[in-house]
Amino acid sequence: MRFTSRTSSDGVTEQFFTLDEIPGVLWTPHDARGIRPLILLGHGGGQHKMAPGTVSHARRYAAEGFAVVAIDAPNHGDRPKSEEFGRIAAEMRTGIAAGENPGAQVAGMHRYLAGRAVADWQAVLTAVQCLDQVGAGPVGYAGTSLGCGLGVPLIATEPRIRAAVLGLLGAHGLTEDAARITVPVRFLVQWDDQMVSRDQSLALFDALASAEKTLHANPGRHGDVPSFEVDSSLRFFTRHLS
Amino acid sequence: MRFTSRTSSDGVTEQFFTLDEIPGVLWTPHDARGIRPLILLGHGGGQHKMAPGTVSHARRYAAEGFAVVAIDAPNHGDRPKSEEFGRIAAEMRTGIAAGENPGAQVAGMHRYLAGRAVADWQAVLTAVQCLDQVGAGPVGYAGTSLGCGLGVPLIATEPRIRAAVLGLLGAHGLTEDAARITVPVRFLVQWDDQMVSRDQSLALFDALASAEKTLHANPGRHGDVPSFEVDSSLRFFTRHLS
Repeated sequence: MRFTSRTSSDGVTEQFFTLDEIPGVLWTPHDARGIRPLILLGHGGGQHKMAPGTVSHARRYAAEGFAVVAIDAPNHGDRPKSEEFGRIAAEMRTGIAAGENPGAQVAGMHRYLAGRAVADWQAVLTAVQCLDQVGAGPVGYAGTSLGCGLGVPLIATEPRIRAAVLGLLGAHGLTEDAARITVPVRFLVQWDDQMVSRDQSLALFDALASAEKTLHANPGRHGDVPSFEVDSSLRFFTRHLS
Repeated sequence: MRFTSRTSSDGVTEQFFTLDEIPGVLWTPHDARGIRPLILLGHGGGQHKMAPGTVSHARRYAAEGFAVVAIDAPNHGDRPKSEEFGRIAAEMRTGIAAGENPGAQVAGMHRYLAGRAVADWQAVLTAVQCLDQVGAGPVGYAGTSLGCGLGVPLIATEPRIRAAVLGLLGAHGLTEDAARITVPVRFLVQWDDQMVSRDQSLALFDALASAEKTLHANPGRHGDVPSFEVDSSLRFFTRHLS
């Protein structure tokens, strides 16, 4: 794990790193020492580790004492795009434009990315927990849309993750992994989501095996999650990871 | 308004009262003085103003500085039961036992109670806001099940109510009133509710005209709302009424 820059502002330290070919960012409280709960942040489709929504969540969590890490998903951000990714993305766009089920099209893309993404997150988690200012404390995962599509298979296979905020995605291709998730989940739904059907959202929530899971639905489109849900997710992680 | 008893414990003062023939309870912080936000608490069907769930919510809110008032719904608690109520309740039970739609049967009962219940709440609200330790501050309403069935017509007609926690009820007979509600709403759904169908719950949430409305769905049956939703509703009211 190689750190390439470090800046601090508003009580939060932001460090860019690479682990093998994975580019990432670590946020910690300024002058953090010792073990603390860690949140893995998965960004949305076509976005990257420094997307505004990801950064604002990260800084909010870090200001409350959490360590937070985001990485570029495969073929996103600073990572090279493979020819196969380009072909699958083009097929996805063509299929959606032709009126095919967007949920099924997006699920195909997520499936292509997930195998690599899960291995990346597991390597990053291991490396970050070796840092003095993080340590092997409790771990949460937060990611919606693509971040949910890659998060569900990750959480299904990674026992270190003990709570998750997911959502903005339907059940296509995810029900088997969802049925292996038993940790507490907060699941976000946008009631007027133009990209994810309401029925498919509810079906993914339904498929989770967690005894504690709460669906939060708000009016508005895919990108319109109200800001008070950030505070709500912070309290959720505080309750389960502190 | 006539107060009949007053006790204090754990920092909360509990006062029983009657207003005309309406029996009620007022909870305020111990030694409260001056204006404060007020929450009206509507109890569930077959319950009353001192049902355990109502009292625990009331004391939690009052401990955080709110004034809270609960009254017995018509034909509930310490109020006389009319012959007509007995007949409608018997018809409702017979209909449900015969396999008729429980949502439609329950809606008929709520419609019978609502006219009187709305007038009761408006009178109690006016009287309570004249008290020195309450005053004419912002008002919220919290009620699920029967408390939602009577709350929806109340909030639709009562402009002093500025935020509401509702839920555990379907849309039968309530869509027109729900479409007149524009204040922020928190709406609770039990995902495995044996008394309210999921579709009907979602339809009532859908019918609310509020720009800010959030549905919280949790696993479990009608009475199994998890305790963390009390804290969540407290933050909701703090955000909108403070």
